[in-house]
Amino acid sequence: MLKVAFLGGGSFGSALSIMLAKKGINVNIWDRKISVIDDINIKRENVKYLPKVIVPAGVTAFIDIEKAICDSDIIVLSVPSHAIRELSVMISPHLKQNQIVVSIAKGIEEHSSKRISQVIEEEIPSNPIVILSGPSHAEEVALEIPTTVVVTSKKMEYAKIVQDVFMTSKFRVYTNEDIIGVEIGGAVKNIIALAAGVSDGIGYGDNSKAALMTRGMSEIIKIGTVLGGKTETFYGLTGMGDLIVTCTSMHSRNRRAGILIGKGVPMEKACEEIGMVVEGIKATRAFYELKEKAQVSMPITDVLYKVLFEGKDPKDGVHELMSRNKKDEV
Amino acid sequence: MLKVAFLGGGSFGSALSIMLAKKGINVNIWDRKISVIDDINIKRENVKYLPKVIVPAGVTAFIDIEKAICDSDIIVLSVPSHAIRELSVMISPHLKQNQIVVSIAKGIEEHSSKRISQVIEEEIPSNPIVILSGPSHAEEVALEIPTTVVVTSKKMEYAKIVQDVFMTSKFRVYTNEDIIGVEIGGAVKNIIALAAGVSDGIGYGDNSKAALMTRGMSEIIKIGTVLGGKTETFYGLTGMGDLIVTCTSMHSRNRRAGILIGKGVPMEKACEEIGMVVEGIKATRAFYELKEKAQVSMPITDVLYKVLFEGKDPKDGVHELMSRNKKDEV
Repeated sequence: MLKVAFLGGGSFGSALSIMLAKKGINVNIWDRKISVIDDINIKRENVKYLPKVIVPAGVTAFIDIEKAICDSDIIVLSVPSHAIRELSVMISPHLKQNQIVVSIAKGIEEHSSKRISQVIEEEIPSNPIVILSGPSHAEEVALEIPTTVVVTSKKMEYAKIVQDVFMTSKFRVYTNEDIIGVEIGGAVKNIIALAAGVSDGIGYGDNSKAALMTRGMSEIIKIGTVLGGKTETFYGLTGMGDLIVTCTSMHSRNRRAGILIGKGVPMEKACEEIGMVVEGIKATRAFYELKEKAQVSMPITDVLYKVLFEGKDPKDGVHELMSRNKKDEV
Repeated sequence: MLKVAFLGGGSFGSALSIMLAKKGINVNIWDRKISVIDDINIKRENVKYLPKVIVPAGVTAFIDIEKAICDSDIIVLSVPSHAIRELSVMISPHLKQNQIVVSIAKGIEEHSSKRISQVIEEEIPSNPIVILSGPSHAEEVALEIPTTVVVTSKKMEYAKIVQDVFMTSKFRVYTNEDIIGVEIGGAVKNIIALAAGVSDGIGYGDNSKAALMTRGMSEIIKIGTVLGGKTETFYGLTGMGDLIVTCTSMHSRNRRAGILIGKGVPMEKACEEIGMVVEGIKATRAFYELKEKAQVSMPITDVLYKVLFEGKDPKDGVHELMSRNKKDEV
């Protein structure tokens, strides 16, 4: 039986740890915070990040990262996208070549616009890297609510190992070899989710949001295929599926930030209120620049950029989108 | 300025009438019920089907169908799909050849499995026929909440006339010449919406529903393309867009019926409780038969058919979907 380590005791990492432990797999969790370690090891509950869920005996938390990873076959980087490079640098000297490194973060690196797997590969060039993505709020995974995700890698034999380890009757893991599509879809969908939140915040309805999501998908595909992803991936679980969950669930930070902005709260204040990283804001800036370079038309991203960074009134933004010249759909 | 008649004073027809009248267009509404006629003409409110919305002076209701249509350039059949044939037979002798017939119904004819435009064409062979479809709950259109729809026709010059007449700054009309895709998407999405409702009714979460909708889209496309529709249409407003709105809005009867069924209420009793036509149930039967003939794999439709018509437990159905062999996504 393979052993798995999660580096970062956040909500999604914890939910997956618990799921694997219930399957009989030995799981280590590493975290910087001693309070998280103690909560997991002693209280058997990750009180701060995944309250009210019992942590089974198969999970052990460590403050020493070397101990957490030394005997693990699979090492999951369960931190937000901006912390991936630093964590990769930290573990790189301690890794054995056959250990599989998995990322569950969604986003692209600021300034460099690199995908997560590219960032990891730069710091950990000799290990197999697998990306796990899809519509999977941690709160629901922990409650064993049916969930589906996708694993991808440059070396699909390792993605298949991760598929086998993570698959349960409530957590269905698909493979997809389009690593670019999986990673770009997971990052750019946050822009549309943020815009959908703005629409909700203005007080618009289900018709408006469905339109925004549908036209948003076509923007994701336009920029995503230019960057090398495949159309069918963007229409799959890691693109459309994750877009749906992010646009409709109150678990989503991006959507919640959007709602505040739609209500007239300035962007910085909205982020403060959410209190956590809002990936969609960074993604809007990154993809705004990328689309300008690539000369791809992304009207929703354009309008959102103006709302976020140029003080445009959100209602005027929607009016602008609705009153463009009449068009054919395709 | 063109004149428009709506045959059927239901909620969507009324919402569109009001929208057009505000644009300065003269609108006639025909309905069988004298109470609806009086409410519109005297109370200036369609009390039963679109309460609390003022009907502008430009709308006149008629009990005499000939009077309603005689001077209209565009005649909208605003009745449910099962009533389209009867209404077409009724108006056929009174039509002039240049009058454009528009349908806003979604579904396919029971037993014959014909599309709405095919049904109309059989009864009204000499007039141009235009289909209007998309994510557009009437309650929101009436409140001028931004909405997008698609018009299609075998003769696109007439779809473009309808586009011009219906377009406003809050109601954006796209054209799409794939009439098969538009009509099939609008019908088959109700199956997935019903299944999404079942998932909600069981108590499953956003992850499960997003997965169901994403995998459901792939079923829509598999059967839809076999029937002659185009993939990009199914991913557009009339497919994916309408699927999203139907799966996430409590305005949707299909979803509400699914929720009851997921809670264990038998199908007949759920329909009774909804009190209106649940198009998704008829669609499930029709497409179950179609897919068997076409030998297309539609696992969600399969499971839903068993739940609806063979007494399968909804939870067992979901378990069946989740525990199939591991697969590649594409």
